[in-house]
Amino acid sequence: MSEAPYDLVIRGGTVATASDVMEADVAIAGQEIAAIGRGLPKGAREIDAGGKLVLPGGIDPHCHIEQLSANGLLNADTWQSATTAAAFGGTTTVIAFAAQHRGMAMKQVVEDYQALAKAGAVVDYAYHLAIANPTEETLKGDVPDLVATGHSSLKVFMTYDRLKVDDEELLDVLWAARKSGALVCVHCENNGMISWMGKRLLEKGFTHPKYHAPSHPRAAEAEAIERLAWASQTLDQPVMVFHVSTAEGAEVVRRARGRGVKLFAETCTQYLFMTAADLDKPGLDGARWMCSPPIRTERDQEALWRALELGDLQIVSSDHAPYKLDETGKFSAGPSPSFKQIANGMPGVELRLPVMFDAMVSKGRLGLNKFVELTSTAPARIYNLPNKGSIAIGADADIAIWNPDREVTIGAETVHDASGYTPYDGRIVRGWPETVLGRGRILVEDGRLAAEPGSGRFLPRDGGEAARPAGRPSAEVALLLD
Amino acid sequence: MSEAPYDLVIRGGTVATASDVMEADVAIAGQEIAAIGRGLPKGAREIDAGGKLVLPGGIDPHCHIEQLSANGLLNADTWQSATTAAAFGGTTTVIAFAAQHRGMAMKQVVEDYQALAKAGAVVDYAYHLAIANPTEETLKGDVPDLVATGHSSLKVFMTYDRLKVDDEELLDVLWAARKSGALVCVHCENNGMISWMGKRLLEKGFTHPKYHAPSHPRAAEAEAIERLAWASQTLDQPVMVFHVSTAEGAEVVRRARGRGVKLFAETCTQYLFMTAADLDKPGLDGARWMCSPPIRTERDQEALWRALELGDLQIVSSDHAPYKLDETGKFSAGPSPSFKQIANGMPGVELRLPVMFDAMVSKGRLGLNKFVELTSTAPARIYNLPNKGSIAIGADADIAIWNPDREVTIGAETVHDASGYTPYDGRIVRGWPETVLGRGRILVEDGRLAAEPGSGRFLPRDGGEAARPAGRPSAEVALLLD
Amino acid sequence: MSEAPYDLVIRGGTVATASDVMEADVAIAGQEIAAIGRGLPKGAREIDAGGKLVLPGGIDPHCHIEQLSANGLLNADTWQSATTAAAFGGTTTVIAFAAQHRGMAMKQVVEDYQALAKAGAVVDYAYHLAIANPTEETLKGDVPDLVATGHSSLKVFMTYDRLKVDDEELLDVLWAARKSGALVCVHCENNGMISWMGKRLLEKGFTHPKYHAPSHPRAAEAEAIERLAWASQTLDQPVMVFHVSTAEGAEVVRRARGRGVKLFAETCTQYLFMTAADLDKPGLDGARWMCSPPIRTERDQEALWRALELGDLQIVSSDHAPYKLDETGKFSAGPSPSFKQIANGMPGVELRLPVMFDAMVSKGRLGLNKFVELTSTAPARIYNLPNKGSIAIGADADIAIWNPDREVTIGAETVHDASGYTPYDGRIVRGWPETVLGRGRILVEDGRLAAEPGSGRFLPRDGGEAARPAGRPSAEVALLLD
Amino acid sequence: MSEAPYDLVIRGGTVATASDVMEADVAIAGQEIAAIGRGLPKGAREIDAGGKLVLPGGIDPHCHIEQLSANGLLNADTWQSATTAAAFGGTTTVIAFAAQHRGMAMKQVVEDYQALAKAGAVVDYAYHLAIANPTEETLKGDVPDLVATGHSSLKVFMTYDRLKVDDEELLDVLWAARKSGALVCVHCENNGMISWMGKRLLEKGFTHPKYHAPSHPRAAEAEAIERLAWASQTLDQPVMVFHVSTAEGAEVVRRARGRGVKLFAETCTQYLFMTAADLDKPGLDGARWMCSPPIRTERDQEALWRALELGDLQIVSSDHAPYKLDETGKFSAGPSPSFKQIANGMPGVELRLPVMFDAMVSKGRLGLNKFVELTSTAPARIYNLPNKGSIAIGADADIAIWNPDREVTIGAETVHDASGYTPYDGRIVRGWPETVLGRGRILVEDGRLAAEPGSGRFLPRDGGEAARPAGRPSAEVALLLD
Repeated sequence: MSEAPYDLVIRGGTVATASDVMEADVAIAGQEIAAIGRGLPKGAREIDAGGKLVLPGGIDPHCHIEQLSANGLLNADTWQSATTAAAFGGTTTVIAFAAQHRGMAMKQVVEDYQALAKAGAVVDYAYHLAIANPTEETLKGDVPDLVATGHSSLKVFMTYDRLKVDDEELLDVLWAARKSGALVCVHCENNGMISWMGKRLLEKGFTHPKYHAPSHPRAAEAEAIERLAWASQTLDQPVMVFHVSTAEGAEVVRRARGRGVKLFAETCTQYLFMTAADLDKPGLDGARWMCSPPIRTERDQEALWRALELGDLQIVSSDHAPYKLDETGKFSAGPSPSFKQIANGMPGVELRLPVMFDAMVSKGRLGLNKFVELTSTAPARIYNLPNKGSIAIGADADIAIWNPDREVTIGAETVHDASGYTPYDGRIVRGWPETVLGRGRILVEDGRLAAEPGSGRFLPRDGGEAARPAGRPSAEVALLLD
Repeated sequence: MSEAPYDLVIRGGTVATASDVMEADVAIAGQEIAAIGRGLPKGAREIDAGGKLVLPGGIDPHCHIEQLSANGLLNADTWQSATTAAAFGGTTTVIAFAAQHRGMAMKQVVEDYQALAKAGAVVDYAYHLAIANPTEETLKGDVPDLVATGHSSLKVFMTYDRLKVDDEELLDVLWAARKSGALVCVHCENNGMISWMGKRLLEKGFTHPKYHAPSHPRAAEAEAIERLAWASQTLDQPVMVFHVSTAEGAEVVRRARGRGVKLFAETCTQYLFMTAADLDKPGLDGARWMCSPPIRTERDQEALWRALELGDLQIVSSDHAPYKLDETGKFSAGPSPSFKQIANGMPGVELRLPVMFDAMVSKGRLGLNKFVELTSTAPARIYNLPNKGSIAIGADADIAIWNPDREVTIGAETVHDASGYTPYDGRIVRGWPETVLGRGRILVEDGRLAAEPGSGRFLPRDGGEAARPAGRPSAEVALLLD
Repeated sequence: MSEAPYDLVIRGGTVATASDVMEADVAIAGQEIAAIGRGLPKGAREIDAGGKLVLPGGIDPHCHIEQLSANGLLNADTWQSATTAAAFGGTTTVIAFAAQHRGMAMKQVVEDYQALAKAGAVVDYAYHLAIANPTEETLKGDVPDLVATGHSSLKVFMTYDRLKVDDEELLDVLWAARKSGALVCVHCENNGMISWMGKRLLEKGFTHPKYHAPSHPRAAEAEAIERLAWASQTLDQPVMVFHVSTAEGAEVVRRARGRGVKLFAETCTQYLFMTAADLDKPGLDGARWMCSPPIRTERDQEALWRALELGDLQIVSSDHAPYKLDETGKFSAGPSPSFKQIANGMPGVELRLPVMFDAMVSKGRLGLNKFVELTSTAPARIYNLPNKGSIAIGADADIAIWNPDREVTIGAETVHDASGYTPYDGRIVRGWPETVLGRGRILVEDGRLAAEPGSGRFLPRDGGEAARPAGRPSAEVALLLD
Repeated sequence: MSEAPYDLVIRGGTVATASDVMEADVAIAGQEIAAIGRGLPKGAREIDAGGKLVLPGGIDPHCHIEQLSANGLLNADTWQSATTAAAFGGTTTVIAFAAQHRGMAMKQVVEDYQALAKAGAVVDYAYHLAIANPTEETLKGDVPDLVATGHSSLKVFMTYDRLKVDDEELLDVLWAARKSGALVCVHCENNGMISWMGKRLLEKGFTHPKYHAPSHPRAAEAEAIERLAWASQTLDQPVMVFHVSTAEGAEVVRRARGRGVKLFAETCTQYLFMTAADLDKPGLDGARWMCSPPIRTERDQEALWRALELGDLQIVSSDHAPYKLDETGKFSAGPSPSFKQIANGMPGVELRLPVMFDAMVSKGRLGLNKFVELTSTAPARIYNLPNKGSIAIGADADIAIWNPDREVTIGAETVHDASGYTPYDGRIVRGWPETVLGRGRILVEDGRLAAEPGSGRFLPRDGGEAARPAGRPSAEVALLLD
């Protein structure tokens, strides 16, 4: 054993995984965690973590980055700005979208996004293949090849006129995923209900941002999850329900899982901390809190927390989708848009962890292990990132060192994405990720970014356990499997 | 009191309504029931009903008559043949469809069907307005007018490429119904699932009629009922789920009703007595049992009976849809059709009552009052036919006199519709409607038709209680109702 | 046909049954309904019912009459006073209790109650055999004999220290009922919960009548219904759940029925119209509204109405249990009783129908047919009183003629039982039974009682359809049935 | 850093926790795990774990050891034999019972068991306080003191005539637990159903061991869990349902948790691997598989596995309850006992882990992390053994080194408890714990026990998170909490 076998030792902190909490040093050699223990030998570099929490870096599996929307609008972030924000918030891996629009070839889409990410990413990353054009070419040609090269999750929308798949296309996508071994992530809202309701509200002259909430009827979510569950069950293809926002949606998830559907589900930070009342601000201010599905009520928040506790929902992501509060973003439709014309989405990749830490660790709801599980370990396991999501030997040294006592008043100036505002403005949180490491290198320290754009790496993944069929196809589909 | 105050007295029978059974004479004056009692005065005509059951004539609220399908095929029956068959089976009222296809004006459609019915009908009748073209002209122009003139139920399909409404159109129809005071009847199956599954089966070379059953995945029905329930609940618009065929479908119905959705549901005779095994016959013989949704399993039959007992399902109809076993009907696509090319539907208006009587009265399942309720009283109440559906003073004298001891072996020669076969061929039933009256006149007696074509009357209906919103709109829709 | 074939004709009213409403005369010959019709011949007596509703007399299947409680207290009514009150309220049949206490021989108990009833009853009556002593002598000796002589329903308590059966005794009773063909009615509340909670409240010094409500935890009811349902399901023995009072209880009933348990259920008037707030009066005034289970909340009222609508609950009874507001009744324990020491129960046999009529007919909730069904027809069918519960030929002429327009302000002076007060004091109802007939004889007319004490008759009943096992015993019990 | 900082290094194995799997050395200093890492310094002793799995020692939280049953029968094991068996099976902590019988003082009971365990235990241990005598002295005197000294879980039976608490006593126990901060473990079966059914079977002459299964009706379990859940919910006191055996029981658990009851549940190995068919052997052979609740069907096995997957059940224990197959044990009632007279229980502490490992790791059902969670980590967390249940720094070095390739044919000679047989006789399992450590010392190595009797330690525990009320008391109980 030579001296200084370790490149870095994080000394004397409280280390937590999804299952354990321990007082221990963490030693890093190269990009990996090499040892966890007490009294580990001195590293080439030492970080004093006394009184700090040493946690796996967050994994945010639901981020829109440098992504073109269907109407031609680019979201505010570049890969550089978004992943810088992620790093500042303690998140060391993001899964973004390679987002096809109709008429685009999926492989080309992936190449284009790969180029952007390769140039700008500060943290590690992967993609969901967002499919808007489920043609035979896409599903039988590109998808199998792309899954085989490490893009093992697909994403489809059940709503948005220019993006949505219809029910038969949904089955096509699930079937293609089943054959390729990919998980299918789904934005579950009933498009017809939203379209219908939006028109009726506008007919009544209701244009204010606060009408965004009722324009997505609560039932639109529950219905679409039920529909997806029946499809998933019939084909025996695992699915992930994105951003559950309602009590009814969570209940449908629970019921589907209970009857044997291999269905995973997440919620997002905003659904746990905000309500539709936030949309009801003077003028267009409410636009800051507009996202889809919309934020709901306190009753829904409670239901979502309970669903997280029970394991009905497994992940909390951000659905980071940043738009500036100007004509390049939220208000691209002009100065007096109706709620239907305002860009949907809000930034969240940076503050997801601090607000969850404050609630779960500082205030104690569900606790530290569950915080790690929901925000890091579960995303790693479900999306099959084997070296991510925990403090474990051989794992990538993706680590956030949290000061549990630091109080921060959130404001636009405390965040690093390009949207220019934060929907958590004015909130005070206790607990902050002061030092953040990605694969052993310092990403953030002393309030400064220490990593280079482009230093993040693409993470190829195969589908893994979550994407494996449950082995319970419907009698009808069993006929196709012989 | 002059002599012979009554035109007809049915003497000495056992009279049953949905709530009572009594030994009594039934006296008719003109078209109406004038008295029920013991020792009633002699009528101008007397019918000896000793040892017989005197029941309200059946109401079959789900019949396709002289109807053009979307692919240009006319079903086998004329109004004359279909209603003759109805009368022979003890059914004295039918609700058929005024079936729009895309591009047709709804009012013209109704006029056309009215002309056919007026000329041919032997029993009384009404229409559901089958809407395939839910344009503004249809929904804001024709529908309110037609509902106001007595056509107070709409019908839409959630499946069939050329007929189905999409989710937004479904809401349009529900909304139009809400404003007009009409009930909306729905064929609930997920079109995408059926389309997808059919293609996959054909790709595997599975063309035999027996593949019709798996081509409509069980989940397609449950899913569509759930979707309809969410729509109905959101808009607070009552709906009727047609032809529930699966245990899962019945369970969804129960759950929806339990959570307060004003949702009615029926099943049809074939789902209570046949199984998918009937489709598995040599060659194309199985075509006789092809209908949609397809017939299922014995487990489903049990679930449907239980749902009838519990009141989850309120009606048993026939979904009479007769096609000849030749190139004008089932095999219009040629001599070697795949299951996708064979016309769907089977005759049932005539034998619905005898097979239900045999099961419920002769064999005792659920009993005589429930038989009357499911096949006559409940359709009258739900579809608001105030003078129909019971043996009651002032009600139309629509009466079937059943010989409970007569055993009949069913065969093609015992039925009177124009399809040329019966799917109940060979079954022996106990109990037969020997004499049938419609509004006091004899329709069937001694095995002969006694009524003239065209003697049936159109029954204008307003929506009534069933079509009235429950008063529990969603919070979103409440915004539209101020 | 001689002149005046009818003894009485009620002319020109609106007659309603559970399934029909009709403008018709009703003719009575002897004790029976002989004819219903228009323009019936003149009767020996005529009653003008123009503008009135002619309804079947009510059946109140849950009345405590001249009954000794376990602590030696006699309730306020004699058979004469209770059945007089019933008649004034339009109720023409009551089912009361032959109430065994421990140590009593069941047959003797029945004889004693029969003697009382025979002497005093103004309306017809039957008994439930209330079993507190389920010994072998009772269950194998007396019960089969008593069921065979027309006492085909048993009653047990799951609570009350001196009355309750334990779980094994409950099974003994269900098994004895199964062998005899009797239905088992059950007071479902968890005794341990109530005992425990009562002690804790008293320990805290909470003695006021308002603590009666929390002393019966809501869960006590739901739990006991679940327990009964599992027992019923295991033995395949039909049961009737008495006086469901909570939303949770109704939900348990629905779930049990949905999974195939042959379980009936009723609620009582007080649970539909009163809340626990009524107990919170100065001093001991709240004692007037004390009954068990206690009255609950408006949310429960809504849930119970919905359960009635859905058919989960089939009957509304009164649970008539009158105690005077003095030392002979409510306050027998002395002038300063705790809530545990105040006699439980309230009068209701008289006003059950007027308050239900007001809500269902005058105010329109669920309507006239359902009013008749819940308060008359369903009790007759479930408890197998074949000649009761409807306006039908051959049925007993038990008829109440209601003036739908008469408004009555309820007060102690408007009621006829012996409790000396009414819990509905001060309410205004619209609709009143002005003339009431029992088996053809006038019971009440012009506000005066016209029948003699002792003119009511005992109604022997066999168990009938409701008491018949469903044919789905558990696998375990199936071993015992070979 | 001196040389050989570690007493022992387990080198080169695959280490697994409930959340991670990693190739790493594990270093032990004293009794604790000091480091996990690659290339750790040499220890004073080294164990080569190449190709092996290094797992936390099992925790079996449900063992009857040297325990007197209510009928005076002592089970076959001493603390020495039972914990020797545990150690051979890779289990390093057991929670047994300090089992009060009626008339015994709880503190004395604990002292007596402590003395036995202190003398004999090879592995670490704790107790559940089994309460059969919930007097005020026990609940207000002994229980708070005993909980305060580290006995933070209570156990009660809802069945067994001489042990069971009635419903009020159950609430007393839950309330005492709430005040003391203890978790309450419950044997949930309805005593009345079991008593009743047993008598009926014996009356039919059914005495064979195979009748043990139907003598515990399936509903008895589901019912009792429901009852417990209502009690738990009302008092807001966490509970643990022991040994769930049926699909219905698991469903009740899921529903209770879903509505917010803080209810944990376990199943046992035998319910996952055996069926009632095992009881149907010639003569009395089936006695080997008699336990309560009885083993059920393959359908139940599937339901329990699904419930484990969903998290409805959190733990798999053994319910180790060994009786010899002679007059000292199973057949103490004589040579021809009925099924009611045969001692209930089977050995399991030793083979719990090997059969679970075979199913979950070797055959892959749910996988390695879940195996560790169900059998070690979850028991440690729920029963609050902070230093147990994982491979973590500072944790007790309780470690089992498994050879995943070793196949063992199970037989009586391969087990070490004192019952003289194993119910898994003849099964072949793949995967075996070859070396087992407890607090750093070798317990088992090379097939030999290496630890001294009495070297196991008592583990005092406070109630921890699992025992903390959820903060959702019923409205009734909230009145008591002010």
